[in-house]
Amino acid sequence: MPAADVEDAIVACGRAGVGVAIVFAAGYAEVPDGAERQASLLRVARAHGVRVVGPNCVGVVAAPSLAASFMSGLEQDRFDLRDDGIAFVSQSGAMGAFILNLAQGEQLGLGLFVSTGNEMDVTLPEVLGELVEDASTRVVLGYVEGIRDGRAFEDALAAARRRDLPICLLKVGSSERGAAAASSHTGSLAGADVVYQGVFDRYGVHRAASVEELLDFGRVFALAPRAAGSRVSIITLSGGAGALMTDEADVVGLAVEEWDEPWQATMAAGLPAFASTANPIDATGVIAIDDTALRHAMTVALTHPGTDVVVLVLGNLDGEEERICSVVLDVAATSTKPVVVTWVGGSGLAPRLLHAGGVPTFSDPRRTMRAVGALCRQSATRAVAAPRQDRLGIDIDLPGPGPWDEHVAAGVLAGAGLPMLRGCVVTTPQEAVAAAGSMSRPVVIKLLSTQVHHKSDVGGVRAGLTSDVEIASNVVDVLEISASLGLADGRVLVQPMASPSVELLLGAHVDPVFGSVTMVGLGGIHAELIGDVRARPGPVTPAEAREMVNGLRGAALLRGARGQVAVDMPALAETVAAFSQVACSLEDRTASIEVNPLRFLADGTPIGVDALMIPIDQEDA
Amino acid sequence: MPAADVEDAIVACGRAGVGVAIVFAAGYAEVPDGAERQASLLRVARAHGVRVVGPNCVGVVAAPSLAASFMSGLEQDRFDLRDDGIAFVSQSGAMGAFILNLAQGEQLGLGLFVSTGNEMDVTLPEVLGELVEDASTRVVLGYVEGIRDGRAFEDALAAARRRDLPICLLKVGSSERGAAAASSHTGSLAGADVVYQGVFDRYGVHRAASVEELLDFGRVFALAPRAAGSRVSIITLSGGAGALMTDEADVVGLAVEEWDEPWQATMAAGLPAFASTANPIDATGVIAIDDTALRHAMTVALTHPGTDVVVLVLGNLDGEEERICSVVLDVAATSTKPVVVTWVGGSGLAPRLLHAGGVPTFSDPRRTMRAVGALCRQSATRAVAAPRQDRLGIDIDLPGPGPWDEHVAAGVLAGAGLPMLRGCVVTTPQEAVAAAGSMSRPVVIKLLSTQVHHKSDVGGVRAGLTSDVEIASNVVDVLEISASLGLADGRVLVQPMASPSVELLLGAHVDPVFGSVTMVGLGGIHAELIGDVRARPGPVTPAEAREMVNGLRGAALLRGARGQVAVDMPALAETVAAFSQVACSLEDRTASIEVNPLRFLADGTPIGVDALMIPIDQEDA
Repeated sequence: MPAADVEDAIVACGRAGVGVAIVFAAGYAEVPDGAERQASLLRVARAHGVRVVGPNCVGVVAAPSLAASFMSGLEQDRFDLRDDGIAFVSQSGAMGAFILNLAQGEQLGLGLFVSTGNEMDVTLPEVLGELVEDASTRVVLGYVEGIRDGRAFEDALAAARRRDLPICLLKVGSSERGAAAASSHTGSLAGADVVYQGVFDRYGVHRAASVEELLDFGRVFALAPRAAGSRVSIITLSGGAGALMTDEADVVGLAVEEWDEPWQATMAAGLPAFASTANPIDATGVIAIDDTALRHAMTVALTHPGTDVVVLVLGNLDGEEERICSVVLDVAATSTKPVVVTWVGGSGLAPRLLHAGGVPTFSDPRRTMRAVGALCRQSATRAVAAPRQDRLGIDIDLPGPGPWDEHVAAGVLAGAGLPMLRGCVVTTPQEAVAAAGSMSRPVVIKLLSTQVHHKSDVGGVRAGLTSDVEIASNVVDVLEISASLGLADGRVLVQPMASPSVELLLGAHVDPVFGSVTMVGLGGIHAELIGDVRARPGPVTPAEAREMVNGLRGAALLRGARGQVAVDMPALAETVAAFSQVACSLEDRTASIEVNPLRFLADGTPIGVDALMIPIDQEDA
Repeated sequence: MPAADVEDAIVACGRAGVGVAIVFAAGYAEVPDGAERQASLLRVARAHGVRVVGPNCVGVVAAPSLAASFMSGLEQDRFDLRDDGIAFVSQSGAMGAFILNLAQGEQLGLGLFVSTGNEMDVTLPEVLGELVEDASTRVVLGYVEGIRDGRAFEDALAAARRRDLPICLLKVGSSERGAAAASSHTGSLAGADVVYQGVFDRYGVHRAASVEELLDFGRVFALAPRAAGSRVSIITLSGGAGALMTDEADVVGLAVEEWDEPWQATMAAGLPAFASTANPIDATGVIAIDDTALRHAMTVALTHPGTDVVVLVLGNLDGEEERICSVVLDVAATSTKPVVVTWVGGSGLAPRLLHAGGVPTFSDPRRTMRAVGALCRQSATRAVAAPRQDRLGIDIDLPGPGPWDEHVAAGVLAGAGLPMLRGCVVTTPQEAVAAAGSMSRPVVIKLLSTQVHHKSDVGGVRAGLTSDVEIASNVVDVLEISASLGLADGRVLVQPMASPSVELLLGAHVDPVFGSVTMVGLGGIHAELIGDVRARPGPVTPAEAREMVNGLRGAALLRGARGQVAVDMPALAETVAAFSQVACSLEDRTASIEVNPLRFLADGTPIGVDALMIPIDQEDA
């Protein structure tokens, strides 16, 4: 139906009591002049009580019989509407249709497909929320281009987590991160993708790295029982395959633990003498020709108390598939533990037989282990994921509308209870020497101005000053720099030097989708260059703060090494959480806040050494 | 043939003038008691002038007619021995056979397959070397478990690079790296995998991340012409697909450059008004139904001077495949630039048609871009890859057989021309104060002993000392620590402090496969924890040293930021190269050498602040 006829049709729907309309027509908000047309359509729909999917979508398909879509292929008999309890929501019509088609070609039943199009009314978060209520849905797949209502999205993910419903998303836009990381201010450092990743981490969303992986995740969750843990026992007929599978297990954080002697002996009892039984288990080619040996190897592996998942590696074996698959399915049925198969090559019969019997099978070792990794992560993250915690709504007085200098910003944060290193503001060398008199040496002096955010870039930071002469001459230098920059408010901050230690960046900015976002980065003022950053919408709990910190690639640096201070992790987690509450409380007034660097005292407790706070309407300053 | 009969058969081969025998039999060096049996077989083969492939291999297959293998499936008619100019060498028999089978199932012609088994005589490097001489081979795939002769391997890779023959390897054992990184000494830090990666980087080897990717690389090199650069123009029928493809391009380092206005106008002239022509080009669904529009979009993209590769994204389109593929093949044939297709879903007809016409096609966007990435990298790295440079064989006198303390080690390196920070060795507080008298303050004092490699771990490093009193009292402390550790040779080294700067680790150790290996890591004494390390067999050229440094994740830190010193890259590269020559010259006498940390002076030139040199037979000290 052309766009011109849609409004009349919606009116007719409303009069006929039709609750939901699916609008395929394009030419709405996705084109330069279509926004008003879409606003008008929304008004009409609301007025007549009709919910709308779309416009500009490819429709909805629901097994066994609803195919409200103009996608090609649906009417063909090879595309029977099979349902494996997998729902698929896509913000891209074309990619959604292609992926649905790919899945059907692989006999994977995406029983419900929703193309959300322009999301004028019904949004992806709303569909997710509905799917959580649907008991027949075992796993939800999604193709995500962008969410408009972060809070609704988080609510839906939290509800899915409570029901232990796996959510697997392919989200585009990861390359914006590279661009954002190149930028020099906090807000753009946490480009949207790192925030999405933080949301995915918070709720245990499985982020698919590719279209194929999205379907692999769907298959493993639809077919396999849940794993109790992350320990994998691998059975192969070749040592080479075992090594490869172990590499892949390592990448996704699965444990391939060595079996102890008694269990090795038990396994060895039913295998040839040259089998290797330590795990990965090279059962030798005998498992391809001797049903008893295969049955033995699988049974022992499933019985082993250190096994959470059994991964079996086979391949090709043309003409033997029916016999072998029937053994695999027989043994798998005796256990509540998942059995997952890698079957490389062959005619395609084996995966069909194994899927029909409920054993997920993949043709590539890496894809197998990544799917098993998702399966195990779903169990491992069940306990820690939680909906976003409440905001405390701290009452914070800001000194005027800004801009604010470092000393003022640090004062606001210290006033809210954060550990900040304080100093004295001076305007002459004499004042500086006097101020330093009461401080432990060495001291640092810094240019103080509301106009300069990156003091060290202009030579405005002088560290390690011990004598009064040094202090005075450096203050003169810095005041000269201030004058040459024409700074009306240029003064000097004198601080005792915090001992060198590992440095973090603690930042917050207001994300257009998720609101106040808290982030932690390794490397302090170099955090942007290092690019080792974790972010989550605030407020974050201390437990979440700890996950963020431990998720940094360089987290090992915080544990104390080579005589350096070990970070007091509970104190750091409390500080990050408190900072995050402060940032949420200032969300309407500050565009971004930074404590950078955050260092650590000799007892491991954190201390903010520098602060930056930018008013909401001066983001580009 | 059972192992017991093999030696007689080899003798018979030799007498009959058979030059090469393929030994399938197992039970040789791969089993605990088989080493002597293999040594005997080798003696017999050598004595009778017979080269041996295997033992314990699955054989050799060569199109069109040689199938010297016991693999199942070969005699079946669906496995005709198709040859796309792809050779495949596998150190794993089972995985090799599975992968060959998978390729045949995907109509990918691995015309030559060699299973090298135990490599008693014929090795993977030798096979690689032979393939370089074979003009019909367009690409070599390999499944690598471990190389014994690193030099032969490098020679073969260098020869392949000279002929511009792409080498694509799936190497197992990457998870050893995780174990190695946990270890605290240099030798194990550069676990074998990081050295292999360095060798791959040196010769532009394409490392496949999975079995599927190995075949994807084979397909793209076998079918596509070479790309002149790394700029991709993407044509899709959906904006969502374009964003996904751009993400994937970014990950593999391909450029998706925005087209300028005139070219956008040229593209727009043949497409609907709502098409997006900036690149990625959303040509809209019209290209699936209108041959002229598809032809136009592809022709313009191929003609654009900023296009090195055209990537076309389609999917499904059941019943339209023949028409669309014939247009794609027509237009692709008009250009010397590669056209690569993502076709998601569908009946499988489209990939078959496109492959038959020489256009590589993949079902997953990510796999497409990773294959295109390899294609472009082959061209981009052609100039810089070179065989290992010659050793200078520097004549270096070592003071005795070791162990050596830091001062001695630094002296050896300084004597060989490396920039090292020197100091004075003292045994009393009085001597320390006297020595510091001539140095700029602050100074650092360090425990000096051949018994202690990690001084800071025992509290033996005191930095930032300014007054004589501080110096004296810290020397007393350190000498007490020395006494409490029972160190017979405990003394104190007094050094001026190198200004804080970014720190590197510069290390060398002797790898059992590749000999002296040079490595560079970010973070100095914390390099192990950070795990940001690059390694290559030495000697490395200054150009290679620069590649290694620029390959560090945190390389941006070296460019100077936030008022810090920018590293003098030519000077650093010369220092790394010189260090690597020194390490090669000491290969027979030192197990490992470390300059750690390496810092940078105000002018950006490097200065070694600490040194460690461990004698060859005291590696575990």
